[in-house]
Amino acid sequence: MSYVRDGADIYRRSFALIRAEADLERFDPVLERVVVRMIHACGMVDLAADVAASPAFAERAVAALDAGGAVLCDTQMVAAGVARSRLPAANPVVCTLSEPAVAELAVRLGTTRTAAAVELWRDRLPGAVVVIGNAPTALFHLLELIAAGGRAPAAVIGVPVGFVGAAESKRALADTDLEHLVVHGRRGGSAIAAAAVNAIASPLE
Amino acid sequence: MSYVRDGADIYRRSFALIRAEADLERFDPVLERVVVRMIHACGMVDLAADVAASPAFAERAVAALDAGGAVLCDTQMVAAGVARSRLPAANPVVCTLSEPAVAELAVRLGTTRTAAAVELWRDRLPGAVVVIGNAPTALFHLLELIAAGGRAPAAVIGVPVGFVGAAESKRALADTDLEHLVVHGRRGGSAIAAAAVNAIASPLE
Repeated sequence: MSYVRDGADIYRRSFALIRAEADLERFDPVLERVVVRMIHACGMVDLAADVAASPAFAERAVAALDAGGAVLCDTQMVAAGVARSRLPAANPVVCTLSEPAVAELAVRLGTTRTAAAVELWRDRLPGAVVVIGNAPTALFHLLELIAAGGRAPAAVIGVPVGFVGAAESKRALADTDLEHLVVHGRRGGSAIAAAAVNAIASPLE
Repeated sequence: MSYVRDGADIYRRSFALIRAEADLERFDPVLERVVVRMIHACGMVDLAADVAASPAFAERAVAALDAGGAVLCDTQMVAAGVARSRLPAANPVVCTLSEPAVAELAVRLGTTRTAAAVELWRDRLPGAVVVIGNAPTALFHLLELIAAGGRAPAAVIGVPVGFVGAAESKRALADTDLEHLVVHGRRGGSAIAAAAVNAIASPLE
């Protein structure tokens, strides 16, 4: 069979195709690389149109990782997608969803397990990069926790996916003062989320 | 904030929305549930139009899992997304990508690490469900391995994503006699792949 077998060549050709087809002009250089990686992870160049970020998002997220900040992930799938070798400071990659306290906490708070798992991030939020790739309730819960006086993370990658609450939770995030990156609408997911982290971890590639 | 906090209710509403919006008529009941889950994982009802499967795919994949077949995944992200609690026979979930032999094997075979990792599946292929959510080269390599006399798996979920080789590798899979499920075109990814496995693991939900 005839196909490209060289990994570096595949990446090069992929990124060239994305840059030829996607409308990336409105992004600054660091964010442009992040968006290219997000497109690469989902195969859709029109994703660019739905991407929004606060002006200092990329700078703050890069600085947070350089300073050793944790990467707080809503699911194990997002955590599995974070390339440890790209992280600049052996940053901890944390997913609290399987911690024993979560099931009971979810019942007590009257919410989902993914939202309850966010409660366990409280002490780790300052300086951290939050990455929500799946659960709108996790993103809503984070916003509630901060609105109620919880300390804010350095940056939030908010790309939950789906049909109930995903678009609304991302609009709510975009309306806050938090440094954020979102994909508006229903699209998102763990692959796009992990790709964004990986791009921020090696912004000059 | 006002949003749905009940996980079961979120699933119910999501699946109802998907079934209201997506064109699912051409799928049999088991495959319909698989496609609903795949759509749920990516937020796009028009994914249905790109889904294709061999007639016996769903039946064979369900039977393979019931019989204890392994789930062979191209990446750790796909493996992380497989819900162990849904698997009917404590099926092994295998990703060989980080095995020490892979890097050298990739150099020797002149291919990517994800393709080389497929070599290590050889003895486990009979009775297994293969799940490729990322790397077109892994899918191409699987097809080459089988064309050269390697034993076939029970079923192949082939949903690599991207711009170089993804569409071509899925067309090549669909042209074989292998029981297969694909998403034609550039779309795919680990979330869609894992959702397909999870739906097959609990087909009557």
